[in-house]
Amino acid sequence: MHLLRSFGLAASLLLAGAVHADDLLALARARFQPIPDTPPALPGNPATPAKVELGRMLYFDPRVSASRPGSCNSCHNVGLGGVDGKEAVIGHSWQQGGRNTPTIFNAVFNTARFWDGRAQDVEEQAGGSRFNPIELALPQAELSEQLATIPGYAAAFAAAFPGEPAPVTLANAQKAIAVFGATLITPDAPFDKYLRGDASALTATQKEGLQLFMSKGCAECHNGINLGGNMYAPFGILERPGADVLPRADKGRFMVTETVGDQYVFKVPTLRNIALTAPYFHSGRAWDLGQSVGVMAASQIGAPVNAEEVQKITSFLESLTGEQARIVYPILPPSVAAAQRPEP
Amino acid sequence: MHLLRSFGLAASLLLAGAVHADDLLALARARFQPIPDTPPALPGNPATPAKVELGRMLYFDPRVSASRPGSCNSCHNVGLGGVDGKEAVIGHSWQQGGRNTPTIFNAVFNTARFWDGRAQDVEEQAGGSRFNPIELALPQAELSEQLATIPGYAAAFAAAFPGEPAPVTLANAQKAIAVFGATLITPDAPFDKYLRGDASALTATQKEGLQLFMSKGCAECHNGINLGGNMYAPFGILERPGADVLPRADKGRFMVTETVGDQYVFKVPTLRNIALTAPYFHSGRAWDLGQSVGVMAASQIGAPVNAEEVQKITSFLESLTGEQARIVYPILPPSVAAAQRPEP
Repeated sequence: MHLLRSFGLAASLLLAGAVHADDLLALARARFQPIPDTPPALPGNPATPAKVELGRMLYFDPRVSASRPGSCNSCHNVGLGGVDGKEAVIGHSWQQGGRNTPTIFNAVFNTARFWDGRAQDVEEQAGGSRFNPIELALPQAELSEQLATIPGYAAAFAAAFPGEPAPVTLANAQKAIAVFGATLITPDAPFDKYLRGDASALTATQKEGLQLFMSKGCAECHNGINLGGNMYAPFGILERPGADVLPRADKGRFMVTETVGDQYVFKVPTLRNIALTAPYFHSGRAWDLGQSVGVMAASQIGAPVNAEEVQKITSFLESLTGEQARIVYPILPPSVAAAQRPEP
Repeated sequence: MHLLRSFGLAASLLLAGAVHADDLLALARARFQPIPDTPPALPGNPATPAKVELGRMLYFDPRVSASRPGSCNSCHNVGLGGVDGKEAVIGHSWQQGGRNTPTIFNAVFNTARFWDGRAQDVEEQAGGSRFNPIELALPQAELSEQLATIPGYAAAFAAAFPGEPAPVTLANAQKAIAVFGATLITPDAPFDKYLRGDASALTATQKEGLQLFMSKGCAECHNGINLGGNMYAPFGILERPGADVLPRADKGRFMVTETVGDQYVFKVPTLRNIALTAPYFHSGRAWDLGQSVGVMAASQIGAPVNAEEVQKITSFLESLTGEQARIVYPILPPSVAAAQRPEP
């Protein structure tokens, strides 16, 4: 009820033009939440230092891929905003993937997973790319086999999953990667400080951008803690973008649900750290943030947005860049002579 | 003179069988030196914190490769003993490289660079793989152009090379990577502690292995601080190994010098951290350390080495595993819309 009333208040206030500073904050707080300082707990998968450490090792280990070309970090690069800076993945045997890599940062707060929602939770998602035949391409049964050939992992799994008689399993590897992934949150963006009450954390332009972001309707989909990541939407509600941005062969969530209404439906992506994660959209075809705001305005919200407004909204989006964790590169347990070999 | 006298002493003592503990240490000290605790200075390329930091960024940045498939760390993985755990590199467009990746750890102490000695110094080597058409495949002229499109690098280069009017150059990038690479040393291996006087740092078996390593002639080539890395030698001095280990098409240093005597001549690799860096030889075809010792004995030294001796030498080689640096993954400066795009 409170939320609904706030939204009603928002509509009338925002349509009336410039709003009072306190009202803007109240409107923002009704739609968005700050990133917490500590990683959230995962249901049924409690974090322990040993489990996070194991997850960190697996995240950076290229040996649990078919031909050892890369690891989770190759595409979800913790030094590059959690992405790879490419339109789409280049995977096993130099195959071209079809979609842009979403950021790992704050992904734990998403409720929609992958661009098409094909995973139920972060643990399932943690295995997805590893087994995708055009990504890391590891046959699923081989992951625990590969790990079992590396003696140092036996101790690491035993410490992470104490009391289990045979802890080196695919399910446990995914749990460990998921708890490490949950540590990759970026608190203390200027917008978070603003939401917590520091009015000086946003510039005047960014505040105008925030107001436009809400009044133009962007926040109807990009809301919550991640400003996105919690729903799906058709790309082209009002006007279908060109095939350069929306390639016609990729029908999005339709390919998972086979429901006609899901054609060209994709996850609404998070806008957290968006200034770090070009190129944009599921197709990765837009390299300019302002240009992408323009595409969204035309295709999704139908409200005219002029160049000055695009600039203000873009300036607001830049306030969503948070503090990144300093990750120590793991020293991985060595392979032994008996270990399985990478595929050619 | 002192060295020569020591070697003369060695020959007579070692051929006589078991040597006194003090004599073994004296013999070892005449041939080997411990890894220092701090990185060595590079001539004409002084290290500063800003230059090391820039080098760390470039080492992990996949954007300075043709299609952004990887970085220096993709093959010289600081979590995997400084190597990739593969027979040979898989590079740009999934091309297969011909030789095994040498470890970056302690590479600064090598005087022979690459398997065939084609680089003069660590700075030249730092550019080699990046521009190799079957490795990272970046056209040489594009490196500084790519870096110049990333605004954050302007400040990092200016801090690393103060006073230079246009510091974003290929030469400076190579200097920075070289000083970062020089930090990747692994002191305090058990053998280093032994060389410094801690007689208990090696097991009895390892000491027997050390004695065999010297008496059988291994140390004629694998000597110095890196137990290798300071000379070239024909692979197959006494008996040419099979084509499985020595593929006939790769004629080694001959391809650089075009001198007949350099056919099948390769760098004598370091044995530092050898237990972490399987597979072995320039061809990467041997996965077992003991098996590799046997191949060396047959092809290089001509002294019969039985299974027990191989086991003792292998045990000694395991004492060459040092302490690895904890590397913090760099947060890389973001690209901007104007930046150049990766190649497909």
